[in-house]
Amino acid sequence: MAADCIFCKIATGEIPSEMVHEDERCVVFRDINPQAPTHLLVIPRAHIVGMAHLDAADLELLGHLLVVAGEVAEAEGLAESGYRTVINWGPDSGMEVPHLHLHVLGGRRMTWPPG
Amino acid sequence: MAADCIFCKIATGEIPSEMVHEDERCVVFRDINPQAPTHLLVIPRAHIVGMAHLDAADLELLGHLLVVAGEVAEAEGLAESGYRTVINWGPDSGMEVPHLHLHVLGGRRMTWPPG
Repeated sequence: MAADCIFCKIATGEIPSEMVHEDERCVVFRDINPQAPTHLLVIPRAHIVGMAHLDAADLELLGHLLVVAGEVAEAEGLAESGYRTVINWGPDSGMEVPHLHLHVLGGRRMTWPPG
Repeated sequence: MAADCIFCKIATGEIPSEMVHEDERCVVFRDINPQAPTHLLVIPRAHIVGMAHLDAADLELLGHLLVVAGEVAEAEGLAESGYRTVINWGPDSGMEVPHLHLHVLGGRRMTWPPG
């Protein structure tokens, strides 16, 4: 856990969120500024800064984030209609919180390009 | 490998592509309809249909796809400027090829929402 990381504090519950899933490795909560009818954030409990900081030692954790993304999307009723997952890294992406997070957006038609 | 899957055939080289990375578990090639100055597709060699078909048995493979996405983005010079990774699933996402693929887009400012 990193001091002053808002997502670390959401993972521990120190900062409240609308949590939809939690397990020993990750939590999933609703984005407070949703860009689609369903907009979830999947984050590891461990403080991984972002895509440029992934470690081969974390393969199972990273895979788990994708599996959980699929599971929560299905729980939200999106498995048939579809959804988009997004991970931002760095200034060109608009990433705001330096704690790895995977967006899951669905419930509307997503356009192309993806931003 | 699935018969008639264009991405399976790209992975084996049966269909040519502009490949930028290949290893025993995945390949990375340039999208033929790029939406950013850099637009890569990271795909597993195994024919995983998509997000709704992930299996906990594939955790390491799925994690590897994310690690490789970070590596090829860095190789493209995007580690500092930033980039966006996207996985589409189902009709609402505009997914076209039913073989799991992770888009890596960078080299320009990405907007929000992500499509």
